[in-house]
Amino acid sequence: MSENHGVQARSAQAWVEQTQSDLIALFEALDGSGQFARDAWRRQGGGGGVTAILTDGALFERAGVNSSAVWGEFDDAALAKIGGEERRFFATGVSVVLHPRNPFVPTLHANFRYFERGGEWWFGGGSDLTPYYPYDDDCRHFHSIWKSVCDRHDAAYYPHFKRWCDEYFYLQHRGEMRGIGGIFFDYVRTEFARDFAFVRDCAEALIHAYAPIAERRRGEPHGDRERAFQLIRRGRYVEFNLIYDRGTAFGLATGGRTESVLMSLPPLARWEYSYEPDPGSKEAQARAYLQPRDWVSPEA
Amino acid sequence: MSENHGVQARSAQAWVEQTQSDLIALFEALDGSGQFARDAWRRQGGGGGVTAILTDGALFERAGVNSSAVWGEFDDAALAKIGGEERRFFATGVSVVLHPRNPFVPTLHANFRYFERGGEWWFGGGSDLTPYYPYDDDCRHFHSIWKSVCDRHDAAYYPHFKRWCDEYFYLQHRGEMRGIGGIFFDYVRTEFARDFAFVRDCAEALIHAYAPIAERRRGEPHGDRERAFQLIRRGRYVEFNLIYDRGTAFGLATGGRTESVLMSLPPLARWEYSYEPDPGSKEAQARAYLQPRDWVSPEA
Repeated sequence: MSENHGVQARSAQAWVEQTQSDLIALFEALDGSGQFARDAWRRQGGGGGVTAILTDGALFERAGVNSSAVWGEFDDAALAKIGGEERRFFATGVSVVLHPRNPFVPTLHANFRYFERGGEWWFGGGSDLTPYYPYDDDCRHFHSIWKSVCDRHDAAYYPHFKRWCDEYFYLQHRGEMRGIGGIFFDYVRTEFARDFAFVRDCAEALIHAYAPIAERRRGEPHGDRERAFQLIRRGRYVEFNLIYDRGTAFGLATGGRTESVLMSLPPLARWEYSYEPDPGSKEAQARAYLQPRDWVSPEA
Repeated sequence: MSENHGVQARSAQAWVEQTQSDLIALFEALDGSGQFARDAWRRQGGGGGVTAILTDGALFERAGVNSSAVWGEFDDAALAKIGGEERRFFATGVSVVLHPRNPFVPTLHANFRYFERGGEWWFGGGSDLTPYYPYDDDCRHFHSIWKSVCDRHDAAYYPHFKRWCDEYFYLQHRGEMRGIGGIFFDYVRTEFARDFAFVRDCAEALIHAYAPIAERRRGEPHGDRERAFQLIRRGRYVEFNLIYDRGTAFGLATGGRTESVLMSLPPLARWEYSYEPDPGSKEAQARAYLQPRDWVSPEA
């Protein structure tokens, strides 16, 4: 636990640690065979974290659940990357990246964090889904869970955070989203108790957003063709994380632990020059899902 | 061929096109079985290029030789990335990335380019080698070729450009170089004829720098262990290109053709959490090569 931090920072950090343990138990149960190995690390300059990785499970080829609480002062290099003048910061958060083995099971990403910089504080986070072979039912389910969590707190949240997610997880150079979106939010700062309750609700919803999809698809038969497509789509995942993702840039620029920051990368990825799926194939159909789309209206 | 460009730009562009053809012929001969497929593209805003890719050859799992000549005005997004005020530019260059199949054969990268921005012009380029299992002989050979090319033009070039390469192809977050370096230069602008002669000499030396190494190692027996290590090291190659490489950032930011810019990525790459080779293994020994080292002194 951090010292010399205020009650908000300490509460957020304690919650992050508890949430990591809870999620580890839930994902182990979902996997049914693999177990997470925990790896604690310290950060020079202040703080540290615990990286928990499950490798070669029944469901997950690799799953990672990171927690960290880091603090100190941004150096010039970090400031140049992040902007602003204020150097003092505190950040705590929990991150999840699940890379399933079966190409019919989507990759899941989620992150929930609390941040202080100088005298300011805010929450950020979200969760997005990256199916390889998307099903409408799955997309509707995932988005409807996030809509109901958001609606319990503020009716304006879901439309706002859904759009933010569509815009954030976008590969400019490919003209496509990383997946089918979800919610993304940052700089949420109304009242601490209220915002904290929202973020806690999000983290509790995560298993409900993902497990039913994973359960329905994990037995889907697949072969070399589906594996090859999964690896190509994973290549796009790598491109997003290394070119655009602010969390990755922040982690690497602030001396975050490289292996923990990069646990989001898939175990194996493929690049094929000018890959184009055959017109009309299920791979070509999958591409249509990578543009913003309404998944929650009754007519959707 | 571009119109409305000066004689320097036109000479450089013609040379780039010729060099691409020459290199394609040389690498096809070296491969012995694969053939390059050429793909011409136009760029909105001015210019275009030819991407030539060889897939599944005898020696190369994938090889790419790109040529391009692009011009126009940087938009705000490009300017924000690149810096400076002047929007008008012309750029022509040829790029090579060879990803061999056998883990004992190194990956080769080279790039030679001519640039104009407003009233300024300069040459840039270089070549670096990324062995998976490095041999001292290969490293000495590669560097000695570049030293002799440089020395024919300016005795100060090799030490300067070698150091620049060591610094440029460096993964800050890993604390290691991408490979064993080579030469890297930019903003070379003494006299056009003199600088052009240097760059032409570099491009002609490329096959001599690489072919003897590829020939000596291509028959080396290897199995799953060496393949797994190659894929992990290729993951670092992806990290460098997507996080640090200025050419990639420039290409994606100026609306370069994505598939041509990203042809540098390996066909397949692997990430393993906290990968550590066994102490004393050949994989552990390989890591010692990823720090700057003198490869040309008599005692080296």
